[in-house]
Order: sequence, then C-alpha cells, then structure tokens
Amino acid sequence: MIKNKEITSRDENFADWYTNIVQKANIIDYSSVKGFTILAPNGYALWEKFQNILDTKFKELGHQNVYMPMLIPENLLTKEKDHVEGFAPEVAWVTYGGEQKLEQKLCIRPTSETLFCEYYSKIVKSYRDLPKLYNQWCSVVRWEKETRPLLRSREFLWQEGHTIHASAEEAEKETMQMLKVYQDFFENYLAIPVLVGQKTEKEKFAGAEKTFTCEALMYNGVTLQSATSHYFGQNFSKPFDIKFLNRDNKLEYVYQTSWGITTRSMAALIMVHGDDNGLVLPPKVAPIQVVIIPIKDAPEVLSVCQKLENDLKETGICAKVDNSNQSAGFKFAENEMKGIPLRLEVGPRDLENNQITLARRDNFEKQQVSLNENVANLCKNLLEQIQQDMFNRAKKRRDEKTYVAKSMQDIKDIIEKHPGFIKAMWCGDKACEEEIKKINGTKSRCIPFCEEHIADTCVCCGKKAKHMVVWGIQY
Amino acid sequence: MIKNKEITSRDENFADWYTNIVQKANIIDYSSVKGFTILAPNGYALWEKFQNILDTKFKELGHQNVYMPMLIPENLLTKEKDHVEGFAPEVAWVTYGGEQKLEQKLCIRPTSETLFCEYYSKIVKSYRDLPKLYNQWCSVVRWEKETRPLLRSREFLWQEGHTIHASAEEAEKETMQMLKVYQDFFENYLAIPVLVGQKTEKEKFAGAEKTFTCEALMYNGVTLQSATSHYFGQNFSKPFDIKFLNRDNKLEYVYQTSWGITTRSMAALIMVHGDDNGLVLPPKVAPIQVVIIPIKDAPEVLSVCQKLENDLKETGICAKVDNSNQSAGFKFAENEMKGIPLRLEVGPRDLENNQITLARRDNFEKQQVSLNENVANLCKNLLEQIQQDMFNRAKKRRDEKTYVAKSMQDIKDIIEKHPGFIKAMWCGDKACEEEIKKINGTKSRCIPFCEEHIADTCVCCGKKAKHMVVWGIQY
Repeated sequence: MIKNKEITSRDENFADWYTNIVQKANIIDYSSVKGFTILAPNGYALWEKFQNILDTKFKELGHQNVYMPMLIPENLLTKEKDHVEGFAPEVAWVTYGGEQKLEQKLCIRPTSETLFCEYYSKIVKSYRDLPKLYNQWCSVVRWEKETRPLLRSREFLWQEGHTIHASAEEAEKETMQMLKVYQDFFENYLAIPVLVGQKTEKEKFAGAEKTFTCEALMYNGVTLQSATSHYFGQNFSKPFDIKFLNRDNKLEYVYQTSWGITTRSMAALIMVHGDDNGLVLPPKVAPIQVVIIPIKDAPEVLSVCQKLENDLKETGICAKVDNSNQSAGFKFAENEMKGIPLRLEVGPRDLENNQITLARRDNFEKQQVSLNENVANLCKNLLEQIQQDMFNRAKKRRDEKTYVAKSMQDIKDIIEKHPGFIKAMWCGDKACEEEIKKINGTKSRCIPFCEEHIADTCVCCGKKAKHMVVWGIQY
Repeated sequence: MIKNKEITSRDENFADWYTNIVQKANIIDYSSVKGFTILAPNGYALWEKFQNILDTKFKELGHQNVYMPMLIPENLLTKEKDHVEGFAPEVAWVTYGGEQKLEQKLCIRPTSETLFCEYYSKIVKSYRDLPKLYNQWCSVVRWEKETRPLLRSREFLWQEGHTIHASAEEAEKETMQMLKVYQDFFENYLAIPVLVGQKTEKEKFAGAEKTFTCEALMYNGVTLQSATSHYFGQNFSKPFDIKFLNRDNKLEYVYQTSWGITTRSMAALIMVHGDDNGLVLPPKVAPIQVVIIPIKDAPEVLSVCQKLENDLKETGICAKVDNSNQSAGFKFAENEMKGIPLRLEVGPRDLENNQITLARRDNFEKQQVSLNENVANLCKNLLEQIQQDMFNRAKKRRDEKTYVAKSMQDIKDIIEKHPGFIKAMWCGDKACEEEIKKINGTKSRCIPFCEEHIADTCVCCGKKAKHMVVWGIQY
C-alpha cells in the first residue's frame, strides 16, 4: 500500500481530502454556475446504481413513478404555512418567460409536496382510489449560501415519494416501511451502518407531523442525515383539500407521507469508506466490480485477461480489462482512485507459474491464485467477503466513535477532542436543544428506536429526562 | 370491436381524440402551472421503457451519462451567435435566488450545448482525451406560446448527447451513427416507419453545420419531427475555445455533435397507432405486454390466471392479472384504453372445455386456445406477430399518404384534401421554402437520403432543381 501522493491525507485534512477525491475519481466537477456542480461520468454511474436498486425496491412495494412540473407558482408554494416558511427563503424564482415578465412568479421546485397535493386533490374521489403510491426522480434547487460538492449544492438529484392513504395507520406503516427500505439500502448495499430514529420537533421537516431519519457517521466523526421519511397526517390534505369518500360514505381528508434520498448519499459512501488512495466502493454498488490489468502488452497476457473478463461476466460480475495505453503502476493507482473493489493482475512471470494475482481494494491484501482454480467463483466469494468486511469495519468505527455524555462538559470534551455520535438524555424542551447547539453547532440527530436509559435527568437543564437523544455535529 | 363511447372518434376530430386519449390512458394530466403537464404513471412507465432501450444502446456504443447544472448564466448562453438567436426568445429566466436579486440572470436550460462546451474546454488537452462521448437525461424548459400535451410543452423530458472528436470525419460518423440508432428505435421498437434525411439550411438546428432528422407521419397526415442528430463542425469549439493538441503536436479545435430525442416521441407513438378504443402499444415498448382477465371471481378461474401469469413471466413476457374489483367488460375497455397488446380471457365456460380466449389489441382478432398447448410460447409468437403487423400497417398508411407534387397547385390540393408527405423538387433557395410555407404552413421536412428524380425544375420558382425535398404540415 503506497499512499497516492496527489491527494491530501484524510487524517491530515479531511475537507481537502474529500474535495480532492471527488474530483480525482471523476465523481464531480465544477461548473461556472456558482454553487452548481457537474455529476461527472463516475459520479453519475454510481447514482444510476443507487437508482436501480432503490427503484426496483419501490416498484416491488407497489409504487409508480410520475413526473411533475419543475416550476411551482408562488400561490401554490405558500398554501401550507410551515412548509412555505421552511422553503421560501431558499428558492430560485423565475420572473421572466422569454421576453415577457410573468404575472405570477414561479419557483424552481425545492421539493414537490405542493404539486403532488394539487394533483391528488384532483384525482382522488373515493376510498377506492386509495392508496396512491407515487414517486418522482428529478433534480431540485435550493439556494444555499455555502456549498460543498454533493453535501450541499444549489441543485441536487433525488427521489421524492409522496403517498396518500385512507387511514392514519396505513400512512404511518408506509412511513416506517420506506425508512426500512433506506436502512436496508445503506446497510446491505452501501455497507454503511445507520442510526434510525425520530427527529425532534425542532429538526423535523417543514410541514410534517413526524420525521424519521437514517443518520450515518463519517470517518471524521461528523454526522450526515442520509435519508428521511415523513408522516404528514392531514397537515397538507387540509389546506390542499384532498378529500375522499370513506367506506362510511363520509368525506375525509387523506393521510399522507413523503420520503426521499439524494445524491448526498454518495458523499456518505465516499466519507465512510474512502482512504488515502481514493474511493473504496462496496461491491454491490460498484459500477465496475473487478478490473483486470495486463502487466505487459503481450498476446498471451491479453488473451488470459480477455478470458477472465468473459468468465467473470458469465458469473454475473461486472468486470473490465483496463486496456488503456498506460503503465501498470499508473493503472493500479487510477483504479484504486476509482474504488474498484477487486483487481486481477495478469503478468508474464505469474503466467509462467500458471497463476495470477488478486488484490483487494479495501484492505490491499494480495493473493496468488492458480488458473486451474475457478477464478470467477473465487472472485464472487471474495466480493461478498469484501462487502461484509467493509460493513463490519464501518460499524466497528461507528461504535468506537459513539459516546455517552452525562454533562454539558462531557459533550464539549467529546465534540472538541474526537467528535462522533453522543448519547445523552433530554427533557424534551427546545430550549435545551438550542443550548446544546451552542457547543460547536451540536444538534440532535434523532431519538433512536433503541433508546437506552443513561440517566434520569436532562443533560442540559437537569429536569426529568423524556428521551435519550443522539447528538452530533453535522454536514 | 365496440367503440369506446367516452372518447371522440379520431376520424371525427383528431385533435380532440388525441387530448382525450392522453388523459384517459393516464399518460398525462394537467397541472395548474400554465403550459406544463404532469407525466402520469402510464406515461412515465412508457418513457422509462424508451429510456432503457436507448440508454442500453448508447452505452453499448461507448457513451457515458453525466449531469450538468440546470441553469445557464446569460453570458454563457450568448457565446455562440446563432445559438443564442435561436433560443434566447424562449427561455425562462431566474432573477432571484432566495430573497437576493442575482447579479447575472440565469436561464433554465433549453438545451445544454453551452454547458457541455464549457466543461469540455476544461477537461480536454490532447488527442488522447478524445473522443468524449457524453449524454444526459434531463428536463428542459422552452417558453412556448401555445402548448399541447407531449407535442409542445413548456417543459419536456429528453436525452441530449454531446460528443467531441479529433477529426471532422469521426464526428460526422458519430452523427450518422446516432441517427441510425434513432431510426432503429422508431422502426424496430415503436413500429413507426421514419423518413430519414438532412434538414435544409432554414430548418437546421441553431448553431449546427448540418442537421439530420427522423420524420414520422401521423394518422391524420400531419408530420412530426421525431429525433434529430446534428453535426456542429467547429461552430461551438471556436467560440468556446475547446482545443486539443493533435498527433502533429499542433493545437486544433475539436469537432462536435449533438443528438436528442424527447417525450414528444410518445406523441408519435400515440398518433400513429392509437384508435377509437385508446392506445395501441407495440409489444416491445409496452410496460405490460399481456393482461389476464378473470371473467368470474371464482377460485378455479383465478388459479388458472395466476398460473398463466407465472408461465408468461418465465418466458420473459411482462404479464399481469387484472384483479381489480370491476366487471369484465369494464376491464376490457380499461386495458384496451391502455393499449396492452394482448388480452387473455379466462372464463368458467371456456375452462369447461379446457380453453381460454386470446384477444389482440391491434386488430381485435380473437382465438380460442386449448390449455394443453404451450400458451406462453404462443403468446410470445403472437407478440412478435403484432409488432410486425403494426409496423406494416403503419408503413402501408405512410406510403399511401406519400404524394408527388409537380406544381404549387398540387401541393395546395394535397394539403387541403388529404395531407401527408409530399415529394417535390426544390432549387435550394430559401425564398421558395418561404413561398411554400404560405400554403397552410407547409414546411420542408428533409432532403431524404433516398432522393428520387421527379422533375428537372423547382416546384416553386421553376429554376433548375437541386434536390428532392419531402414537405408537409407539422406538429
């Protein structure tokens, strides 16, 4: 393992390391449009993998995709009070269409609740029309003041599910179901352990009754809200007048959910698994899973490479020979930067002994393998092993960086010395959240589903505690 | 075949028929945002089929997907003179970000040449970096004055390919290759015969050197530009300064292409194949290919339906039992409206004779089939037959509606009595195109690759003819 010298070390300067990585690995690039970035080929390929996995899951659960207009008239955005307060300050306004000044300004969607609500109010009449389980893949715009690639950008790609139901119970079930879909995606595909739980009143989505979240912990101990699922109750259906005739033949407002995941989840992937040599992709989401590198440009080497590629593909592995006109060393570094989980090195000396070399990206372990063995099968098992090991390593680190605080001083010490998830009791009062936020911006991440009893009293005010909350500094 | 009474007949009023169909088949719906429509579940599912087919093809040919910002600063849009003249009058302008007035206004992309050019100018240094074969799936906004669902909308979904090359020859080859991809898509997937050829100077894309097109003819004889592929030469690379060091170690401007297809192609599908009972989808793009309808809600009927669904799925056919709580007659009409290519009716009387009924959507033919036969295989063959028959019927109609005009009066007679493709000779002069346009807006569709010699002189001015052009009125 030789450190890639072109990038800053992650232990030295994590922020620089991250900015280096996303560009060198061709994940994102900058454009001249301030605050907007380009999703470069490797970044978009990764997002396509995310989309395929999630979209398949959504459809299995009965959801259908639709596409709503990207612009929202001002009078529609402002129909739900909390919602407009949350979003109006950060939307982009279209005021001219061609050379004509618009009668009513339109904002580029920061999220599409209002459009879905308007649509639903038109198409739903009876309980027979319910549930409606719609989802949309699109980009949204939020006029952020400070931006960072993938983490905070004036435009990002996402998926927004919006469903309506005939009962509160059914809608709450949907909210939890979709949270679990996200948890499964993070843990079993991205190999990222997530903390799941409910947001406090202060941190919930603008207009929601309850917000649930998947919270991940980055290598540097900073937390990242990675996906959310909201239960709206009738908060939107009332102002938007989405009524249906229920089984008792009475008019009732629908019960609603929304849930989403964004290109931000790619930042989580990079910041949990990446190292000083570049990205490290879990096999299940790697657009290329195995790269095969001919150490020498000789016919016998190339033919073995080609055969290996074919064998691997037949086993269902996405494999590719790196035929680029570069030195083997350059190719090693390049493919490590891209995070390809497994590298097969095919060299003339190895071939004399009828063997090749396998190198794991995640831990740099190498092994020689005889070509008499079933290499494709071996790779398949190894990829599964890598996936599992990556999750275990991330979980071990996450657990090591999860602390208990029994006083405000504890929180301060942890945040300043070695940030991470901080478990501490809370009275339920917003004022205490505000107080804790003064410690370097430490915020409540969630009230986890698995609460523990750490103490009887609130870490801040000392009154009787209502919940254990996990706190942390955030991206 | 009983006509669906809820929709206008296509022979009676084609425009009304179309508007009825797109809504009743749940393809599009209207929103309160003027000029913008909603892609409803069946519309989006169809677009996803289009995307899958084309995206696979693009990737096989070495293209990579990226995502560029949706906003373009005014000074970037205006860099290429013809381009800005073509697009500036019809863009939407963002002038406020949050509560802040922007220093420079930004337009929502009407197309992304300018953004790709800027990106390419940054990332390309040497011939070793070429070609770059990037594509983007996104939505674009053009502030149309009059709008019609799918055909002309202020926002539409599309794919825009933008490639740069080290030589004019290679770029021209790419332009033609992508035109053929579109032609193949229309003819072999959408079952729509297309006329391929080159646009005249007057009708080419703003900024292109040459534009090639796939032109389709709708049921009512109106033409539809369905996909285009452009060769830019160095028209953009010069103002955007996209230079590379060529093999002779000299700086040279790159050679460029772009090509695109939009949700408009769904309008073509509807208007070529649809009938008075609704959509008729070619099997290769139908999200559901076979619908299985239990004529009675009885256990023995439902179990046969379920077995058929499983058998069909195993054969690779997308099949679905319609379990909705409706009468068989309602389900027939509903699934005809959606255009599902094949219907299996499973009724108790048929089952007594160990048989079921197959009904084709395209020609309403029915046949009884014994359950001793391999029904899945039979359906597979029938779907192939339907695909072929639909193309043949569309081609026959297209050919019947293709006329030869030797005088301006001929053109006038054809356009007024029975519009269609009109072959006529042309001198190459823009003035004659303007003159012909006065006949109900008749425009040159293209100079087809297969030109015929119809006459020696221009149909308009009588001077020596340069080309045979196909003309028509357009959507």
